[in-house]
Amino acid sequence: MSSQDSPLHPIDDAVALEPAGDGRVRGRTVDAWANMVGPFGGTTAATMLQAVLQHPDRLGDPLSLTVNFAGPVAYGGFDIAVRPVRTNRSSQHWSLEMTQDDQVVTTATVVTGKRRETWSDTEAHLPDVPAPEDLETSEDFRGVKWVENYDIRFVEGAVPDQSSEEGAAESTTTMWVRDLPDRPLDHVSLTALCDTFFPRSFLRVGRAIPAGTVTLSIYFLATAEEIAAQGAGFLLGRDHAHRFHGNYHDATARMWGRDGTLLAMSHQLAYFKA
Amino acid sequence: MSSQDSPLHPIDDAVALEPAGDGRVRGRTVDAWANMVGPFGGTTAATMLQAVLQHPDRLGDPLSLTVNFAGPVAYGGFDIAVRPVRTNRSSQHWSLEMTQDDQVVTTATVVTGKRRETWSDTEAHLPDVPAPEDLETSEDFRGVKWVENYDIRFVEGAVPDQSSEEGAAESTTTMWVRDLPDRPLDHVSLTALCDTFFPRSFLRVGRAIPAGTVTLSIYFLATAEEIAAQGAGFLLGRDHAHRFHGNYHDATARMWGRDGTLLAMSHQLAYFKA
Repeated sequence: MSSQDSPLHPIDDAVALEPAGDGRVRGRTVDAWANMVGPFGGTTAATMLQAVLQHPDRLGDPLSLTVNFAGPVAYGGFDIAVRPVRTNRSSQHWSLEMTQDDQVVTTATVVTGKRRETWSDTEAHLPDVPAPEDLETSEDFRGVKWVENYDIRFVEGAVPDQSSEEGAAESTTTMWVRDLPDRPLDHVSLTALCDTFFPRSFLRVGRAIPAGTVTLSIYFLATAEEIAAQGAGFLLGRDHAHRFHGNYHDATARMWGRDGTLLAMSHQLAYFKA
Repeated sequence: MSSQDSPLHPIDDAVALEPAGDGRVRGRTVDAWANMVGPFGGTTAATMLQAVLQHPDRLGDPLSLTVNFAGPVAYGGFDIAVRPVRTNRSSQHWSLEMTQDDQVVTTATVVTGKRRETWSDTEAHLPDVPAPEDLETSEDFRGVKWVENYDIRFVEGAVPDQSSEEGAAESTTTMWVRDLPDRPLDHVSLTALCDTFFPRSFLRVGRAIPAGTVTLSIYFLATAEEIAAQGAGFLLGRDHAHRFHGNYHDATARMWGRDGTLLAMSHQLAYFKA
């Protein structure tokens, strides 16, 4: 199933869900987000978050999201069971399971809550990098369709040339990224943007290899107002890994608005074969 | 319920679970791990992991663990529903819920799997710091019992003096830490050790304030053999936050063995009131 004639923005098309009764919602994959195998993980994560956002019992804004990629998502329809497991005075915990043909393909937990004004400080500052207008949009061929939904401009750590003899000495990629076409930023699009870095293993090994995210956790460090204030502007993302070993590695990304607001941290564990 | 006469190590006492039928196991809190409200979150996390480790259908070693602290755990008994939601050829996904009086107090997801030998590299190296033998065991009063189960030696970012006028300029704590009494390291004790840093908000604000972890994710970056090779030696942990805003902040900790092996990354989102 696809929706190429839809007037919706690609990300809104991907996360469109309809009630399916009994605490479930139903969606389907969208061709525009095709990855190597199944849809882009960022849209799967955004879809899980959307299931919470549109739930009538939701309390507050997203604080955190953990998505576990249990198995490949097949192109086509899926169901999501979405359950508020605990509601406190100012926070709420959610558990979700995405199934296809009654097999679990993705699980997630989400925490939502009300934020209050408090003492505030940012320790991780927006790095001093060239403006996106002074960099070129990446035209790297990656063999996947979903990258066409983003304008990505690499500051450092671009996708390795397939003819390169060896990988980079470090796993850091710094890049500007925004939705194509333009779309005002919200928690849904920010979630997908948090997963737009190509695998750190590609960068270190120097070529595309079998790789994939196993689990992804996003912490929303900004208020909904701060996120909305970014409009359709570029975000700056910086991603790096701490260790590659035993066919798994971690990765940690910081996502800033162009105004310097640290919007989110995105952490993941990924497998690789090399 | 407590078990002060138990011959077990305190951490093994805390995670002791017995079958309760229908995919459930049963445990109880242990006095030695008392925190401000309820038990130390590190033991709750370790208990969730233990429920997977002792499950007869488990495939492989822990790769990741996410624990969501949905509500306060009361002293006394608890049940854990533990479910293998998806088993692949070399990895397995688990969902868990801890309940007390049928109310959910903690949720968790765990990924286990088999590791293979691959290309390997560590980018986050053990920092050059004084040896634990050249530092003093922290005697800071924290008003909580669980810290007595650890030998903590601060390199930087110690617990702020309650009479201090202001907080630290940065949220980084670097410390050596090991179990008391001695106990060979494994995934269970490593999980609890990953949560032994005091709240980053205490350090920045300069005093103890209402604070607590909302969600915690641990990525195991070492094999079981590398973890076991640490024996009962000190681990070096370095923890820091990226942003404090709207009564939440993140924290990211790296945990090395004394031999320089990066054993785990520990990420969390915590609330604070200041």
